[in-house]
Amino acid sequence: MDFKKNPEDGTNGRNECEAIEIIDYDAQNYRAYHLKTADPNDLAGLSVIPEGGVRWINVDAQCEDGLLRALGDAFQIHPLIIENIRNRNQRPKIEEYKDFLYIVAKMIYYAGDSLVSEHMNFILGYRYVITLGETKGDVFGRIRSFLENESAHVRTCGPDYLMYLLLDAIVDGYFDVLETLSDQIDELEERIMESNSQEHLLQIREFKKTLLKLNRNIWPLRDVASLMGKESTELVRATTEPYLRDVYNHIVQAIDTTETCRELLSGLTDLHLSNTSNRLNEIMKVLTIISTIFIPLSFLAGVYGMNFKYMPELGLRWGYGAVWALMLAVAGAMVCYFKKKKWF
Amino acid sequence: MDFKKNPEDGTNGRNECEAIEIIDYDAQNYRAYHLKTADPNDLAGLSVIPEGGVRWINVDAQCEDGLLRALGDAFQIHPLIIENIRNRNQRPKIEEYKDFLYIVAKMIYYAGDSLVSEHMNFILGYRYVITLGETKGDVFGRIRSFLENESAHVRTCGPDYLMYLLLDAIVDGYFDVLETLSDQIDELEERIMESNSQEHLLQIREFKKTLLKLNRNIWPLRDVASLMGKESTELVRATTEPYLRDVYNHIVQAIDTTETCRELLSGLTDLHLSNTSNRLNEIMKVLTIISTIFIPLSFLAGVYGMNFKYMPELGLRWGYGAVWALMLAVAGAMVCYFKKKKWF
Amino acid sequence: MDFKKNPEDGTNGRNECEAIEIIDYDAQNYRAYHLKTADPNDLAGLSVIPEGGVRWINVDAQCEDGLLRALGDAFQIHPLIIENIRNRNQRPKIEEYKDFLYIVAKMIYYAGDSLVSEHMNFILGYRYVITLGETKGDVFGRIRSFLENESAHVRTCGPDYLMYLLLDAIVDGYFDVLETLSDQIDELEERIMESNSQEHLLQIREFKKTLLKLNRNIWPLRDVASLMGKESTELVRATTEPYLRDVYNHIVQAIDTTETCRELLSGLTDLHLSNTSNRLNEIMKVLTIISTIFIPLSFLAGVYGMNFKYMPELGLRWGYGAVWALMLAVAGAMVCYFKKKKWF
Amino acid sequence: MDFKKNPEDGTNGRNECEAIEIIDYDAQNYRAYHLKTADPNDLAGLSVIPEGGVRWINVDAQCEDGLLRALGDAFQIHPLIIENIRNRNQRPKIEEYKDFLYIVAKMIYYAGDSLVSEHMNFILGYRYVITLGETKGDVFGRIRSFLENESAHVRTCGPDYLMYLLLDAIVDGYFDVLETLSDQIDELEERIMESNSQEHLLQIREFKKTLLKLNRNIWPLRDVASLMGKESTELVRATTEPYLRDVYNHIVQAIDTTETCRELLSGLTDLHLSNTSNRLNEIMKVLTIISTIFIPLSFLAGVYGMNFKYMPELGLRWGYGAVWALMLAVAGAMVCYFKKKKWF
Amino acid sequence: MDFKKNPEDGTNGRNECEAIEIIDYDAQNYRAYHLKTADPNDLAGLSVIPEGGVRWINVDAQCEDGLLRALGDAFQIHPLIIENIRNRNQRPKIEEYKDFLYIVAKMIYYAGDSLVSEHMNFILGYRYVITLGETKGDVFGRIRSFLENESAHVRTCGPDYLMYLLLDAIVDGYFDVLETLSDQIDELEERIMESNSQEHLLQIREFKKTLLKLNRNIWPLRDVASLMGKESTELVRATTEPYLRDVYNHIVQAIDTTETCRELLSGLTDLHLSNTSNRLNEIMKVLTIISTIFIPLSFLAGVYGMNFKYMPELGLRWGYGAVWALMLAVAGAMVCYFKKKKWF
Ligand SMILES: [Mg+2]
Ligand SMILES: [Mg+2]
Ligand SMILES: [Mg+2]
Ligand SMILES: [Mg+2]
Ligand SMILES: [Mg+2]
Ligand SMILES: [Mg+2]
Ligand SMILES: [Mg+2]
Ligand SMILES: [Mg+2]
Ligand SMILES: [Mg+2]
Ligand SMILES: [Mg+2]
Ligand SMILES: [Mg+2]
Ligand SMILES: [Mg+2]
Ligand SMILES: [Mg+2]
Ligand SMILES: [Mg+2]
Ligand SMILES: [Mg+2]
Ligand SMILES: [Mg+2]
Ligand SMILES: [Mg+2]
Ligand SMILES: [Mg+2]
Ligand SMILES: [Mg+2]
Ligand SMILES: [Mg+2]
Ligand SMILES: [Mg+2]
Ligand SMILES: [Mg+2]
Ligand SMILES: [Mg+2]
Ligand SMILES: [Mg+2]
Ligand SMILES: [Mg+2]
Ligand SMILES: [Mg+2]
Ligand SMILES: [Mg+2]
Ligand SMILES: [Mg+2]
Ligand SMILES: [Mg+2]
Ligand SMILES: [Mg+2]
Ligand SMILES: [Mg+2]
Repeated sequence: MDFKKNPEDGTNGRNECEAIEIIDYDAQNYRAYHLKTADPNDLAGLSVIPEGGVRWINVDAQCEDGLLRALGDAFQIHPLIIENIRNRNQRPKIEEYKDFLYIVAKMIYYAGDSLVSEHMNFILGYRYVITLGETKGDVFGRIRSFLENESAHVRTCGPDYLMYLLLDAIVDGYFDVLETLSDQIDELEERIMESNSQEHLLQIREFKKTLLKLNRNIWPLRDVASLMGKESTELVRATTEPYLRDVYNHIVQAIDTTETCRELLSGLTDLHLSNTSNRLNEIMKVLTIISTIFIPLSFLAGVYGMNFKYMPELGLRWGYGAVWALMLAVAGAMVCYFKKKKWF
Repeated sequence: MDFKKNPEDGTNGRNECEAIEIIDYDAQNYRAYHLKTADPNDLAGLSVIPEGGVRWINVDAQCEDGLLRALGDAFQIHPLIIENIRNRNQRPKIEEYKDFLYIVAKMIYYAGDSLVSEHMNFILGYRYVITLGETKGDVFGRIRSFLENESAHVRTCGPDYLMYLLLDAIVDGYFDVLETLSDQIDELEERIMESNSQEHLLQIREFKKTLLKLNRNIWPLRDVASLMGKESTELVRATTEPYLRDVYNHIVQAIDTTETCRELLSGLTDLHLSNTSNRLNEIMKVLTIISTIFIPLSFLAGVYGMNFKYMPELGLRWGYGAVWALMLAVAGAMVCYFKKKKWF
Repeated sequence: MDFKKNPEDGTNGRNECEAIEIIDYDAQNYRAYHLKTADPNDLAGLSVIPEGGVRWINVDAQCEDGLLRALGDAFQIHPLIIENIRNRNQRPKIEEYKDFLYIVAKMIYYAGDSLVSEHMNFILGYRYVITLGETKGDVFGRIRSFLENESAHVRTCGPDYLMYLLLDAIVDGYFDVLETLSDQIDELEERIMESNSQEHLLQIREFKKTLLKLNRNIWPLRDVASLMGKESTELVRATTEPYLRDVYNHIVQAIDTTETCRELLSGLTDLHLSNTSNRLNEIMKVLTIISTIFIPLSFLAGVYGMNFKYMPELGLRWGYGAVWALMLAVAGAMVCYFKKKKWF
Repeated sequence: MDFKKNPEDGTNGRNECEAIEIIDYDAQNYRAYHLKTADPNDLAGLSVIPEGGVRWINVDAQCEDGLLRALGDAFQIHPLIIENIRNRNQRPKIEEYKDFLYIVAKMIYYAGDSLVSEHMNFILGYRYVITLGETKGDVFGRIRSFLENESAHVRTCGPDYLMYLLLDAIVDGYFDVLETLSDQIDELEERIMESNSQEHLLQIREFKKTLLKLNRNIWPLRDVASLMGKESTELVRATTEPYLRDVYNHIVQAIDTTETCRELLSGLTDLHLSNTSNRLNEIMKVLTIISTIFIPLSFLAGVYGMNFKYMPELGLRWGYGAVWALMLAVAGAMVCYFKKKKWF
Repeated sequence: MDFKKNPEDGTNGRNECEAIEIIDYDAQNYRAYHLKTADPNDLAGLSVIPEGGVRWINVDAQCEDGLLRALGDAFQIHPLIIENIRNRNQRPKIEEYKDFLYIVAKMIYYAGDSLVSEHMNFILGYRYVITLGETKGDVFGRIRSFLENESAHVRTCGPDYLMYLLLDAIVDGYFDVLETLSDQIDELEERIMESNSQEHLLQIREFKKTLLKLNRNIWPLRDVASLMGKESTELVRATTEPYLRDVYNHIVQAIDTTETCRELLSGLTDLHLSNTSNRLNEIMKVLTIISTIFIPLSFLAGVYGMNFKYMPELGLRWGYGAVWALMLAVAGAMVCYFKKKKWF
């Protein structure tokens, strides 16, 4: 029950299909088809579900207003929910209505290098699940395969178990992102120890933004799974509740992981800043060593470059040699001093 | 149901009108007029509302004490509320009285470049809403258009739905401010990477002050919307409660956004400080490279500038050339050393 | 109902009076007098209050043990309270006893430049309020004026309303201190931008200590006002409760303000540290510019100061001029380099 | 009722006595004696307490296993408690058993310069208190004096009041430590402003460790006092509960004080770091001033030290004087520049 | 009851044994044997436990899927638990089922120098405990010895007491790790004061990661012990509950210790950074002292190295000596200045 998937994988094979995807199933039967019309009359029929079966209605793309309104009429969905489906700037949440649960979650995955956060809406009724995404592609590929398979457990359960599979796939997606992030943080740590570039700090910042995005979206999902795992709602059967409590545990685990990543990142900032300071120390050491060795020597050379008439040393045969000896002695003393201070 | 508006827009058209604005409406009728008197007798009549209708009384400017007292008498408002309306230094809050709810919220918007925070008071009765602002202009322009429109949903609802529209407009205003702030933070990040000015830190500070102001005013509004969305008060009908729970969700979303902005800002401080350090490193590198190359060379020149009588090198034909060669060799060695250390 | 007062003001006029101040009032009558005795028999009579009236007993100075014990006997006060009144090192709190409420709060105000925090004790009975301070002076001057005025609302209310007025005056005093502090923080921000002195950090530290003191004393007062504003105790009448809820709101507002000040202060530390770094950068820039311009020039001068016999350039007519030209070229190149790097 | 005592004071007079200390008292009678035996039979008699009296059994030293087991048998103490008494690495806590309360607290005091934290166990029965410490010496000297005094309130109360006195003495000990720490922090602040030594940081670290130790041991004691102050247990009589609520208030006050100390300490780290930066600035200023004044002058001297044949200035009579004038002018200009920049 | 053990110790003696370890015991009997089969029929018999006895089934290694499924069938374990046992990336938790408790905990210990965190699963039934680890080796060696010993308390108790012993051994293991960490932090503190290496920061980072791992795994275990210590479940008998509350206290103590370690570590970062700054100050001091002493002297030498025709000083007999005297005077003045400033 591990739905890790390549995000491209879900897109391929179903690309460019803008119609509604419908899957009807029960223990014996399975039927998947697409509805290309947005005619309210056609959609009205969607709420008539075959006896004993479960229907999954999936709109995996930008949804037209007409289609949305027609769906809302067919399933008697409150206008506020319709509006909420359109407004992507929302926190994950769960709302109980008389005949269904309305759930909002964020599907988060890497599309190439950039992190995508897709606004997902779920409506869980007694005999159906409606899913409405924002852009093409999802992380539900493996769930479709399960449904096709007659021996799969899900075929004998209600729509609440399908809902669990969908939520679980989304949470597994978070772990994929967190694992990638974790690896990138480790790589960055090594790069920071090797070189000292301002780029590092920008990258830390980028990772922090990713973590913030994840954190903001995982935290409220905790309450969603918690409520569904309790006995409070009839729409989730008692046999499905342990599965949702398991999802809840996964979510808390994911939150723990984001917090671990956060602490690791803030440690990286310290490491980078300390590296910058160390580098300055190294630069200053080089300057100081060179300067303190040669400045006294240059002074000595300057003294014997003076043009006084009466400078007895200048006439001495061994004067020049003696100065060289003195200079070497001074330089040697300086080098010893630095050695003692462990400057090199 | 998205009331984003230009803050100037609300001011225009109603500018310089210091009277009370009154709007009476029901499903069939709509009447908007201004009352320019502050005569208690005239105002006393305000509490007599046409059968089946809703009255919105709006005082959109600094309110005179006489007018306020007269309103208080007409609607039997507790003196403490009158005092609270006058005292602008208050947190958003909600208070239940026998016949009405008293609500305080802050309307926040940019007037040109400066952020304005206007103290707004609402009194929600069974058949009326009274709104009292602090300065001219508000964010309610689109609500007035709704009310004029006979087919608008609000025309068939009570004053609680109007109250929802007013609160929602205020919360939408917060998102406008947060979006502007978010953009400004991104711009600042780019400027920080480009140049190193103390101005950056002052700007970060300015943004932090804005965020603090927002945060202080949004947090307590959460409790206001939460209480109104519950079944606790009769003044908010059951059909309006879901709308207020939606406002609650928007408020929590806004709080999340302020926290995201806050973390981004504190990252900017680090970035600026690191830039300052980096700049120092760069300056010191230049100094160190120049110094360590030329100081030994100057020493050499100094040595052969000494005036000793017996300096064998001085008499050599190729002495001068040899010194130049030595100098170039030393300089070259230094440059190689810095290259190896990746200093340039 | 705004009791801002000059702290000196309360002291003057009643200076050097160490007796007990007693004010008896009802709607018609008002009588204020001082009791200079500490004779238990005299004090025993204090608990006999004129029919229908309210008595305020105020001990506004260091209280002698004898007096305190006599008061305790007269009003049947638990020995623990007597001990608590003596022990000034306490947090604000409220305790319910059978016949009275015991309340501790801190009166905080600037006496000249230093912040004073006075330990205040209140005992609120069914027909009396006893207030016991620590040093001369209080912030209750305006309440005394109210009581003298026959038309004041307080004259028609019980001791619980007087208690509200006293608490409100104390909370208003907090706002005075916070306002002063806020202004001082703004001034400090300007001074920090102007000059770079270690004094700034000491001042930030001083402000932080003030904020800590305020915070420690305002936080627990929140619970005091909260409990009194609820319906839990008969000693506070239902008509007075809204007033205490208003005080509660003021306290929460004051807490918010201390937190805002705190964040502004911690931003100032960053600003100061960044200024110190910037200053170092500036100093190093000056050194580096001067050094990197003149060190190569000095080297050139040094070269032609060497005493080799065969240095062809030395004999050239235009040699000296050429060296000057070369030097100016080198200096110019350096200046261009720094200009390009925007170092000045 | 203020039990501040010199920690040595409790040790003296009772030094080197390894026996069990027993105090029996009621309103009329008082008897204190020591039991030097660890014979189970002798100890079994300890649980037979004189009618109407209270017995305090104090084992003020490292307790032998045999003695502990015998005590456990006499008072029917659960083996887990016996183990807990031996295991000193525990948090303060309270546990209710059928016939007694088991309480753990830490006695903290300075023994000379080092902070001692002694593991204290209390067993509070209906007619006895057993106290078991870890090392010689305690802070209960004044309680012993109270018990000897026939007019003391404690003589008329049960063992719960004695328990209150013991807890109160321990909490008063915390305030002694906090006061010492507070003074040391103030002293350190002054030393930091005077000189710049790495020792300061080590001392801040030492104080932080002390605060951590205090904090870890005071926090859980809060729950102990809170539970005893409520009406939940019969072992604490209603008349003693207010005293325990008072201890609770003292504990909260102590927690507040540790938090204040913590904030003051973290401010000291900033102060020290800023001092280090300032010192660097000062050092660099000296270097820069000397360098920028003399480097250009040395260059000038170098120019006229060149050996070109045709250097017209060299032959001028006033050439040497003019160069000196030029040099003084350059130096003067530099000094003016630094003065203008307020570098000295 | 202190189960500290060398982690290697548990591995030795039982190395390379991949079978299931089974221990049956009651007050009189003890039998330990291994089951090398994974045949479902053989395993089915495992759930038939000798009358009045307790069975401990321990799978101390990577568990094959077949074996796991067979165990699940024998004891009627929910498929979700089977999956949870396989998935090692989980937080500690407790789940109540009809006939057993499912508990997850992390066994943490040093294997040589690297910290190992082993995923442990416990199933506590009315008459059995099943333990499933991840790798060879555990910390249960002393518990096995207890069970062999006929006089051990555990022999007279049910499986809940065995469960307590297992949990207690795991928590004791945390204290071993924390003690090692605490010692390493102290050593690092000394090394940081001695030398200034970037290695220190990496080591602090390593310790922080260890603490994070511990913290993440201890926190949720708190809830496990808390729930087992309450009266909520019949699977834990009333007589065993105090033991689990004791484990709970140990866990809270361990959490306190991780927080103390955390604060000590963050103080070490400050210490290291301050050391780096101090070192820079020292380097700059050396440079500044040498430069400011010799730069003015070199200037003087340069002046008298100029080649002007008319330099009166050059012809003076005592000119050279006078310059030396002047130079020594300047150098002496500089040295005095630095001495006064306490630079050395
Ligand atoms: Mg899964
Ligand atoms: Mg999609
Ligand atoms: Mg999952
Ligand atoms: Mg959040
Ligand atoms: Mg939480
Ligand atoms: Mg889990
Ligand atoms: Mg956590
Ligand atoms: Mg920093
Ligand atoms: Mg307020
Ligand atoms: Mg307005
Ligand atoms: Mg909205
Ligand atoms: Mg707040
Ligand atoms: Mg929303
Ligand atoms: Mg929140
Ligand atoms: Mg007021
Ligand atoms: Mg006073
Ligand atoms: Mg007030
Ligand atoms: Mg707080
Ligand atoms: Mg608050
Ligand atoms: Mg002792
Ligand atoms: Mg005390
Ligand atoms: Mg707490
Ligand atoms: Mg107290
Ligand atoms: Mg506090
Ligand atoms: Mg810092
Ligand atoms: Mg143990
Ligand atoms: Mg194992
Ligand atoms: Mg243990
Ligand atoms: Mg927690
Ligand atoms: Mg413990
Ligand atoms: Mg703690």
